[in-house]
Amino acid sequence: MLIYFLDMFGTAVFAASGVILAGRLRMDPFGVVVLASVTAIGGGTIRDMALGATPVFWITDTNYLWVIFVTCLISMMIIRRPRQIPWYFLPVADAIGLAVFVAIGVEKALRFEASPMVAVIMGVMTGCGGGLIRDVLAREIPMVLRTEVYATACILGGIVHTSALAIHVDSTVATMAGIITTLTIRLTAIRWHLSLPAFAPRQ
Amino acid sequence: MLIYFLDMFGTAVFAASGVILAGRLRMDPFGVVVLASVTAIGGGTIRDMALGATPVFWITDTNYLWVIFVTCLISMMIIRRPRQIPWYFLPVADAIGLAVFVAIGVEKALRFEASPMVAVIMGVMTGCGGGLIRDVLAREIPMVLRTEVYATACILGGIVHTSALAIHVDSTVATMAGIITTLTIRLTAIRWHLSLPAFAPRQ
Amino acid sequence: MLIYFLDMFGTAVFAASGVILAGRLRMDPFGVVVLASVTAIGGGTIRDMALGATPVFWITDTNYLWVIFVTCLISMMIIRRPRQIPWYFLPVADAIGLAVFVAIGVEKALRFEASPMVAVIMGVMTGCGGGLIRDVLAREIPMVLRTEVYATACILGGIVHTSALAIHVDSTVATMAGIITTLTIRLTAIRWHLSLPAFAPRQ
Repeated sequence: MLIYFLDMFGTAVFAASGVILAGRLRMDPFGVVVLASVTAIGGGTIRDMALGATPVFWITDTNYLWVIFVTCLISMMIIRRPRQIPWYFLPVADAIGLAVFVAIGVEKALRFEASPMVAVIMGVMTGCGGGLIRDVLAREIPMVLRTEVYATACILGGIVHTSALAIHVDSTVATMAGIITTLTIRLTAIRWHLSLPAFAPRQ
Repeated sequence: MLIYFLDMFGTAVFAASGVILAGRLRMDPFGVVVLASVTAIGGGTIRDMALGATPVFWITDTNYLWVIFVTCLISMMIIRRPRQIPWYFLPVADAIGLAVFVAIGVEKALRFEASPMVAVIMGVMTGCGGGLIRDVLAREIPMVLRTEVYATACILGGIVHTSALAIHVDSTVATMAGIITTLTIRLTAIRWHLSLPAFAPRQ
Repeated sequence: MLIYFLDMFGTAVFAASGVILAGRLRMDPFGVVVLASVTAIGGGTIRDMALGATPVFWITDTNYLWVIFVTCLISMMIIRRPRQIPWYFLPVADAIGLAVFVAIGVEKALRFEASPMVAVIMGVMTGCGGGLIRDVLAREIPMVLRTEVYATACILGGIVHTSALAIHVDSTVATMAGIITTLTIRLTAIRWHLSLPAFAPRQ
């Protein structure tokens, strides 16, 4: 129940990040809705397609779509007064959404009898996939691939989640442990601008 | 039957738009075929994957592929004499293809017991998905997200289509109403260069 | 068995090409893994989604993922001394991987009762899909669509493969004939810098 609420919260936050990018690209209102949608449900859609969990989740539960539409309406109004939002609001909200999405991806994969390694990958895909498609559509090199410990936080959160399940920790506790791990790492990275050293061949 | 004919027509038109873009990027002949194919069948492929309608449509009915190949051959010859084609030919043909694709997407989704809202989204996906992938591959910000009432026309066409079915209008009539709605809006937008005001945050 | 070994070899080579591009874009280590993964398994994933062969192959056989991870580790170390690798190593290895991937795609499609034409397309998709997604993520116009007879080699290899099966050649022989065709054409193109004339409309 709490997870479901957090899932909707994550959907709203990811949709809002799509709206913001659409605004910068001066898209028309329906372009905004499209970009918000792919950001919010793109990752989970690829996950479900790969698992064979079709029809994909937002076809069977249309609440996701309603959350996206309402988010688009609200954020198109709020965004015109960006100064009223504190700078840390969006990254922190994004970190919460990310952490929840990873946990949901891990759980769904395990329900489809995937191995723990695949479950971690499905978690990363659920968390990072939408933002990745959003950036591709907006013709930017995906932030997910470059930003301070973004995918890294997802991977570690997923590993904690599946490891806890492997040693027979209670399912809800394992989920929470995964969420808290992803969230803590992301918030730490945001607060102190941490980043892994870029890998680059010697010139 | 008429729908099937129009579907093939739409496939040909969309393939041709892929050929034109490939020509501008100076691709080799098989790159041309690839770009034409993703434009013509990309949207429907994602729709079928999301619905779980696999194998996807062009695997079971290879007529789509033949139409694409023949279109590539013909349009590679015609395109060398672009002056012989009136300027409005391509946009008008594209509008017809778009309107038919939306209707086909709506119908397929309903056949898979999707809700009306999901059906409209599947219609938009079928109509706009191919052009979107085409532009991503050609490294342009998708026209679909920027152009005058393009996605908008699809959404309204889809709403008319599903609403007509909801009040028990005959299925063929509902389909036609949807097609005509999408087509009329697109043609109007093309003729008078209408566009929705871009949404952009105040600087 | 030989095919399976070559498949793993192809996976490693494609992953390495993702690592190299990631290095040029100065991604962090996990961005490297993501780019390597989409390059190595992206094409086969789309193929399986389209065929309805879900869960997709790397979910049921996690060896692919291990090969990718190990390749990332090794190539991040080797790549710092690029001068020790002869220039032709990567293109030749890539050609071998490509030829094997095409054959595997053709076979998988036929096992799912696709027609020969669809099987050829699935072969091309398996061989070229990953590199295409890699280049889209890295914001380049896909090399696959531009390079000297790349997709072309795949198409011809696939045609030889399916034609051999159609005249009842032994399955293993047909596979080998397809692999050798793709490989020979690619190696010839690499050696003499062959390319098809670009198709472009007269200005």
